[in-house]
Amino acid sequence: MRQPIKHCRSCGTEVAYRLPPDGDTRERAVCTACETIHYENPLNVVGTVPYWGDKVLLCKRNIEPRWGKWTLPAGFMELGESVAQGAARETVEEAGATFEMEGLLSILSVPRVGQVHLFFLARLTSERFDPGHETIEARLFAEDEIPWDDIAFRTVRETLERYFADRKVGRFNVHTVDID
Amino acid sequence: MRQPIKHCRSCGTEVAYRLPPDGDTRERAVCTACETIHYENPLNVVGTVPYWGDKVLLCKRNIEPRWGKWTLPAGFMELGESVAQGAARETVEEAGATFEMEGLLSILSVPRVGQVHLFFLARLTSERFDPGHETIEARLFAEDEIPWDDIAFRTVRETLERYFADRKVGRFNVHTVDID
Repeated sequence: MRQPIKHCRSCGTEVAYRLPPDGDTRERAVCTACETIHYENPLNVVGTVPYWGDKVLLCKRNIEPRWGKWTLPAGFMELGESVAQGAARETVEEAGATFEMEGLLSILSVPRVGQVHLFFLARLTSERFDPGHETIEARLFAEDEIPWDDIAFRTVRETLERYFADRKVGRFNVHTVDID
Repeated sequence: MRQPIKHCRSCGTEVAYRLPPDGDTRERAVCTACETIHYENPLNVVGTVPYWGDKVLLCKRNIEPRWGKWTLPAGFMELGESVAQGAARETVEEAGATFEMEGLLSILSVPRVGQVHLFFLARLTSERFDPGHETIEARLFAEDEIPWDDIAFRTVRETLERYFADRKVGRFNVHTVDID
């Protein structure tokens, strides 16, 4: 999904994948001119489980991938923000929701795509939404109304399953999940 | 700490920082030739709190920054691994410890440097260590022996404080911390 590094971001010269001279055990993209080492690391996707009574807020995606599928509000964490700030920002951008942030609910590693997804609970303070351009529709769903076959991402499905299971027992935990 | 992007990683042409045409609200490094958009996002640092009875394992750093200061085993998460796998790998690399991974203890956002630090509990199964080249010495410390004035990073100090506080009440929580 990410393009390989071909050129140095500092000087533009071509890179070669090789072991850096600092004892590193992995091949990195090293500039053949200025020797800058370019690291590639996993990305965080941060979002929320916004709830209103016994319902949760889902957003119908207006962007690829998974156009038209339902998701929790979430997106790539940006520089200059905390995980909770990023999760809140995405909830505003994608759903136009008003809410109070609560605790972390899930942290899901997806090594296959080099991502970590983190979802926080968010208590909605209004059932009016104002979705942004990335969302076709934002709607509340009770557990038996969730469109399980049209959920955009496995991390969202796994998070929703844990949300409803925890709610039944009346106590929310932080769930650490590895997804193959 | 990270150098700004000057050249396109795909074609090597100079980039310009500007709003991409896709509705993005942040300026990105966009290639002036092939229009590739280059994103920069926070990095995850993953590690453990390795414990043995009432003691925790700290490593004296043999690398900059903070050479000679004490830290928990931790390092940058790599592509192709989960957060827990990365934390375990760093614990092997830096301390040569043998242990069983347990639950997540802390997740600390450090927006100023674009990092998220995650620490897992790790139950040591031996008190013999074999530190790697990044570590001068690996040693067990009881709470009243911790060299608080010589801890390398604030995220490590905050994590150790929460570890000992939780241990006193006999129950470990997941601590979400924002560090200015």
